[in-house]
Order: sequence, then C-alpha cells, then structure tokens
Amino acid sequence: MKILVINAGSSSLKYQLIDMDGEIMVAKGNCERIGIDGKFTHKTFDGRVVTKEVDMPDHTAAFQQVKAALTEGEGKVIERLDEVTAIGHRIVQGGAKFDRSVLVTPQVIQDIAGYASLAPLHNKAHVQGINAAIAAFGDKVPQVVVFDTAFHQTMPPVAYMWGLPYEYYEKYGVRRYGFHGTSHRYVSHRCCELLGKPDGQGTKIITCHLGNGSSLAAVKDGKVIDTTMGLTPLDGFMMGTRSGAVDPSAVTFIMEKEHLSPSEMDIVLNKKSGMLGISGVSSDDRDVAAAVAQGNERAKLAWDMRTYQISKYIGGFITALGGLDAIVFTAGIGENQEVLRSELLHKLEYLGVKVDEEKNKVHGEEREITTPDSAVRGFVIPTNEELVIARDTKQLVEQL
Amino acid sequence: MKILVINAGSSSLKYQLIDMDGEIMVAKGNCERIGIDGKFTHKTFDGRVVTKEVDMPDHTAAFQQVKAALTEGEGKVIERLDEVTAIGHRIVQGGAKFDRSVLVTPQVIQDIAGYASLAPLHNKAHVQGINAAIAAFGDKVPQVVVFDTAFHQTMPPVAYMWGLPYEYYEKYGVRRYGFHGTSHRYVSHRCCELLGKPDGQGTKIITCHLGNGSSLAAVKDGKVIDTTMGLTPLDGFMMGTRSGAVDPSAVTFIMEKEHLSPSEMDIVLNKKSGMLGISGVSSDDRDVAAAVAQGNERAKLAWDMRTYQISKYIGGFITALGGLDAIVFTAGIGENQEVLRSELLHKLEYLGVKVDEEKNKVHGEEREITTPDSAVRGFVIPTNEELVIARDTKQLVEQL
Repeated sequence: MKILVINAGSSSLKYQLIDMDGEIMVAKGNCERIGIDGKFTHKTFDGRVVTKEVDMPDHTAAFQQVKAALTEGEGKVIERLDEVTAIGHRIVQGGAKFDRSVLVTPQVIQDIAGYASLAPLHNKAHVQGINAAIAAFGDKVPQVVVFDTAFHQTMPPVAYMWGLPYEYYEKYGVRRYGFHGTSHRYVSHRCCELLGKPDGQGTKIITCHLGNGSSLAAVKDGKVIDTTMGLTPLDGFMMGTRSGAVDPSAVTFIMEKEHLSPSEMDIVLNKKSGMLGISGVSSDDRDVAAAVAQGNERAKLAWDMRTYQISKYIGGFITALGGLDAIVFTAGIGENQEVLRSELLHKLEYLGVKVDEEKNKVHGEEREITTPDSAVRGFVIPTNEELVIARDTKQLVEQL
Repeated sequence: MKILVINAGSSSLKYQLIDMDGEIMVAKGNCERIGIDGKFTHKTFDGRVVTKEVDMPDHTAAFQQVKAALTEGEGKVIERLDEVTAIGHRIVQGGAKFDRSVLVTPQVIQDIAGYASLAPLHNKAHVQGINAAIAAFGDKVPQVVVFDTAFHQTMPPVAYMWGLPYEYYEKYGVRRYGFHGTSHRYVSHRCCELLGKPDGQGTKIITCHLGNGSSLAAVKDGKVIDTTMGLTPLDGFMMGTRSGAVDPSAVTFIMEKEHLSPSEMDIVLNKKSGMLGISGVSSDDRDVAAAVAQGNERAKLAWDMRTYQISKYIGGFITALGGLDAIVFTAGIGENQEVLRSELLHKLEYLGVKVDEEKNKVHGEEREITTPDSAVRGFVIPTNEELVIARDTKQLVEQL
C-alpha cells in the first residue's frame, strides 16, 4: 500500500509518497510559490532529483505537477496513479472537535474551514489542498486528515484554560490547543517503547519539539497533560522569529506606543521577534550560534534566553507531572543542536540528571544521551510526522 | 523616632505612623475617594477609631486630615507634628534606575514622574503624594521613597528580557520589572534568618506573595533571580481580577474580535479576568471558596487553575534556582488560605516535600508548615511592607 502525504500551505504544497510495506519513502517534493510563479522540486528514494520553474496558479495546478512527477519522466516512481491507495493530509488546527485522525467527508471539510478563524493562514490552505487532491485523484481515493492539535486534546481544563473572561472561551473558543501534536505523539510513543512501557502507563515524559517553531509537551501515562503552545503556534518560549510568552500588558503597551493594529502586532510577535528580534542577526539557530562564537552579545543573550525559558517550562512541567522519567529532544534543533541539549540537561542536575556528553554529540540517530546512573533518561528521537500521517491513513483506510 | 509611611493611590492615601523604638504601629488610616467626595478612617494602637465623611479635593487636603487626626481629637497620638521625624513613601515603579530606597530630591521626583508611562495610575499618584507631603510637612522633614521594583533589580537579563524586538527594550524600557519587591525582600530575609543563614549565602528560596495581586520571586543567595510579574503587575498566574500570562496571540485575537483598543483590552485583562473572569462569581478568594463548597463548577475551575498555574511557576523557579531549600507564603491569601498552601505543597511531593497539616491550619503567626523530615522547608511569614519602608527611611535619615 502506497500513501501520499500532503502538507498544504497557503503558497506551498509538500508531499511524500510512502510505501507502507517497510514504511519506505518512495519520493518527496515541494511545490513552492503557488499563485505567485512556481518552483517545483521532486526527489526519489534512489536519489533522482527533478526541479523546474513552472507556473502553478493554484493548488490544483500544483497537484498536476505532483501527479506527473510521480508517474512520468526522470522522477517516475510508480506506473499508474491508482497505485496511490490513499492520501493523508496534515491539518494544523482541529479545534476541540478532533481528538484523532478521521476520514475526509464533506462535513469534515466544513469543520476544518470553520476553524479557520483560529488558524487563518493554515486551515484555509488545508481546505484548498483537500479539494485539489479530490480534483486530482477523484473522490474514490480515500483521504484522511491528521491534526496537529489532536494529541493535545487530552489536556485537562486547568491546563488549557487561561484566566480570561469565560465568555471568550464560549464565544470564540479561546483556549490552549497546542501544536506539533503529531510529532509529540510519535516521539513520546517511541520513548515509552524505549522505557519498556509501550502502553505508556506509569510514565512521565517531556517531549521537546525544537525547530523553527518549537513546543514542549508534558505526557503522563502516554497522554498529553500540558503543552507550551496555545491558541496559535506563538505561546511558550522564544523561537526563530516568534516571541513566545510575554507579559500580556507588554502587547497592549507596544501597540499603544507604536500605533499598531492587532494584525500588525501579530506580525511583530510572529515574524520580528524571538531569536531574530533579540539577536538582530538571524532567526536561524546556526547563524545565531556563529554570532555567539564571534562574541556578539545580543546573539549570546538570545541564545541564553531561549535556554533559560525552555528550562523553566521543563521545570513547570516536572511539577505538573509530579516527577520525570524521561525527556526527549526532536525536530531540526532538538536533533542537531547538542549544545542546547547539554545546557538544558545540565539545568536539571538538581534532579540527578547526568549527561553523557559523548553520546550527546553523535548526530542523526535515535539514542540515549544520559548516563546509566542518571535519575532521568534523556533521548534524541528523530521525528517523522509524515510517517505518522501515513500510518493513521493506512489504519483508517483498512477499516473501510 | 517616629516615621510616617505613605501609600498614595490615585484616589486614596494610606498611612501608618510607626514608632521605631520597638517598631510599634502608633496609628494608621486611609483617606478614600480623594477628588470624588471623601471618606476618612483613622485607628490608633490602643483601639481608638475615628471615621468621617469629609470632602478631600486632592492629596494635599487628605494630608490635612492625616495631620489633624494624629495631633488632635479622639485619635490623637502625638503632641506636635514635628514628632514625625521622616516620611517614607511606597512607589510602585522605579524602573531600571532604582535598585534601592533613596532620599527624595527634585531629581528623584522627576525620575518617578518619568516612569509614569510604565505605571500610569500609580506613579502619578505617588508624585502627588510626595508633593502633598512636602506641602503638609514642609521641606525640612526628610522623605524617602521605597520602590516595589527595587528588590527585583538583581535579575539577570535572561530573566528580565522577553523575546520581542530589542528596539522596544531600548526605546521604551519594555522588560520584566517585578513588583511586591518590598514584601519579597522582607519575607525572604526573614526566611534566611529562619534557615540560620541571615546573609542568605547558599540559600535557594521561593517567596509567594499571594493577595489580590500576587507574585512569586525566586531568591538565590538572598538576591532575586526571577519573578512572575513583568512590565506591569499583570504577568504571572491568575489573580483576583487579573489574567496573569496568556498566549500573546489571544490578546490580539480578542481585540480583533471584540473591536477593543489597547486601553480597553488592558481593562479586560486587569479588571475582568482572573478568578472573577473564570468563576463569574467574585474576585474575592473567600467568595470563590464558598462557591466551590456549593458545587459551582466554574468556581472550582478558577480555584484549580490558579493552584495549577502557581505550581508550574514554582516548578520553573526550582529549575531556575537549581533546587529549593524553602518556600514562603505571605500576604492576605498566602497567610490565610491553608487549602491553597496545602495543595501547592502537595504538588511538590515528588521532591520530598511533606506538609504538616496541623501547623498549616494555625492562623496569624509566623510558623513552619512542613514536617522536620521534609526535603524543602515551608513557612508562613506575615509580610509587613510598611515596616520595611519605615526601616529604610530610618536608615537613610540617620545617615544625613
């Protein structure tokens, strides 16, 4: 069974074709600048690469490129389109309704569109992606939606509510939803296996998804009890260009001083803040690290602020969990940035955490990075959100 | 030496006359509804009470009432006004400039007025209070200002900076200042004495000032390294009517949906949120507790959210401190709400914290509320901000 995994953004469409016999990536690619001009990249499991500049006025046009690349020319990996058994879509915001992946129906599409006010850029694009997939593959190919928010839906109200007037929760659904749920789910389940408790019972885990966007999840008995991101993927600690949590009065104070509208302030908080805003150098972790090495003080401040903020959330989640068995690092920064991992684990020395500095320096593979006598086990587990989407899709399709 | 302690608000003036020989409260009172109509209350050390409705158009008029009450009539406690050696004022916002108490000079008054943009309601009133005190007592009576923010000025940049564009820090001083510093200072110093380390060296303490406004401070070696309140007294966990921290995108989201200006949103966040906003019952802890007892679900949610939020900050600060020697509860709720204290300490059981439930139930006096074998010592220490202000005033005046 081959499954096509789709991640549709407002001007992009990422895809990955996965052969579920062996869970092997067959081909993957990206349609960029949809609706602007268009750049198409396609890579196969055996290293063939197709790139071209091609006009893609909308997501349906992008799907035509994907179909052609999979079945024709240099990047061809399948004979016929009907080898694609099903399609799985990544959806950012599933609100309070979706606590698991589901098959696409007209009602589900309507629900996803209905949550657009909570994730304007993402959910509208996802609906375009689903509709374009139906147009491209026909309505006989089953489609599944996998939500970034779903794994967090086990959070109790004490964790997902804020101390705002209750009416905003009732009227608009203002609450913590959490994101990166597919990744937190994948690495927390894998961590439970590594702890020898595959059902998760009795485990207390913190998963650190650290990438350009970053979040932590507190996972107890295999279920999320808290996470750092909130209504949108902004809350928590500082990220590449996102502020993370700040005093709410700082938001209104800056708006007043700078005469900013709410949407203008959103741009400040999401695009001009975080590592970029403090360092003044870059939103990219590697650039900031290079600037730190050159003695740039604001880059150092940005670096240290992020470490400090993450460590405080870890501490808060340890109290929420009532202890800690394991901590997992994943995603671009979590998997590759050994200095940050080491700093974070050293801040937990008071709990008896002991880093294995050598193992921490190894790159690329799943591994334990604490010593055998460490009171808490630390792991690097490379995430694979596309595989989770494909697995969920397979499971739901097999039930048809 | 008798010192008059002043806490001037925009429409109120609280005072306390303290005899520094024995640190005894001689009289205290409150001028309310200044500039509206006027209500005056005066109480003496020996239980005499004077109350009257009297027009007080401004703070200078209020001081005339204070002077008269101290020296004449039923509430008289001193023969002549010159028995008041000095006056100490509580100032909410001292910005980054004031890391200790200072004698009032024209420049100091100007600096306090200059910080009004960071605390509009408070600092303007404080300046009015200082000027009215000069008008009432003459410029020969030395005056001292004691800042709520000063004790927090030892925080490192990683704790006081947010991940916002750096220019807002440079242009407007947007950073964490922290409040209730006088209280955190008093109880943390007292805690160090109780730990047998009066200079604070080697101690790791969290002080919980829990009142209508509430904040925590992480105090290492006797110095604040972090605190929950920020630019204004809004950040941190939920309070009576204040939201505490919320996803910054929730602020802009609600403003957009409800068409609120920044100052209107400030009113929502400061006056309509917190325990009141969630419970729908009251901002008062006792009312909420009563509603919980009657089975009110939203009151229970408000109660549990506050406990949960405070416990997460405690956990974060334990990581920031790298461990914990003692936790201190103070102020109205911290001193009187044994259920909340017990809940918070039970959440630290994973660290080996053991509550002495009997001692926790005692009211009104300084005491230890954990068992002798508890891994962290818990204390209730009644705060006394007026005494700290009087002591600082005495010390500075004696150097003249």
